[in-house]
Amino acid sequence: MALFSKDIATLDDLFVHTLQTTYYAENQIVDALDTMIGKASAPELQAGFEQHRAETQNQIARLEQVFRMHGADPKQTDCPAFDGIRKANDSTASDIADTQVLDAALAGGAQMVEHYEIAQYGKLIAWAKALGRDDCASVLAETLAEEKATDERLSRIAEASLNRQAADAVA
Amino acid sequence: MALFSKDIATLDDLFVHTLQTTYYAENQIVDALDTMIGKASAPELQAGFEQHRAETQNQIARLEQVFRMHGADPKQTDCPAFDGIRKANDSTASDIADTQVLDAALAGGAQMVEHYEIAQYGKLIAWAKALGRDDCASVLAETLAEEKATDERLSRIAEASLNRQAADAVA
Repeated sequence: MALFSKDIATLDDLFVHTLQTTYYAENQIVDALDTMIGKASAPELQAGFEQHRAETQNQIARLEQVFRMHGADPKQTDCPAFDGIRKANDSTASDIADTQVLDAALAGGAQMVEHYEIAQYGKLIAWAKALGRDDCASVLAETLAEEKATDERLSRIAEASLNRQAADAVA
Repeated sequence: MALFSKDIATLDDLFVHTLQTTYYAENQIVDALDTMIGKASAPELQAGFEQHRAETQNQIARLEQVFRMHGADPKQTDCPAFDGIRKANDSTASDIADTQVLDAALAGGAQMVEHYEIAQYGKLIAWAKALGRDDCASVLAETLAEEKATDERLSRIAEASLNRQAADAVA
């Protein structure tokens, strides 16, 4: 027992806390993708971001479903990890003038967001199973599969065109 | 041409910038792992963190090698993404009193760091190849393989013991 109050007493508390930070991040991602769509030049990258935005709306709805299944109210809790990733992506993008180099950076930044999400959902699924909530794990696994597919799609777009175009750009 | 100076003009600049932020993060990770080893209770988790710390020292040496191969001086540039992840992990850990719930959180936090590294090295390898530097990509790929193996090892430890012990902990 700690001398001062600690908010996360059980694995169930940790699971709900992580649902809340993920719910915050997914809502922020909708906003971040709007900005990234505006900055991207390559049509295939814009289309990839638009598809990801549509998927993110479904992922938010799935998180709300898991909150309800688990008897908790959907609530956002700030996530410094996501905020840091967004700050890094924005900072790098603001340092780039060339549109093709910017496209390569935007795709790479989006993949960092995907890996954040893969790590979050990976934890949530493992903890849901340990808590005997295979029903919640199963809903969360649908999102994890989408995040991995988005990461692979971004890799394909970057390697097939964006990175080579960026390498050919002249300062 | 931008009205104001932009530091990243080419994909080569973006590659070197990302080497620098990764070099910063890897150095921070050595320090973060020291803290995490001190907080962890399960021997298998402590051993996993100790192995990761030893690997990180090798990964720092490999980054220095790639800087030199590419004709750049090894230099650290702050990475807000890594800083945010560390802040999130520290904040969550400080909110947990139970040692078994803390172990589950520490393992999950370490996996977030792994996914940060997987994303960073994934970008670096793709950009090195686009720049015609397969030699640099090959060195960086050794680290990427280690990061993926560490992530899988943490999943195995968490699922085999930590998460179930945490689920059994009583508030």
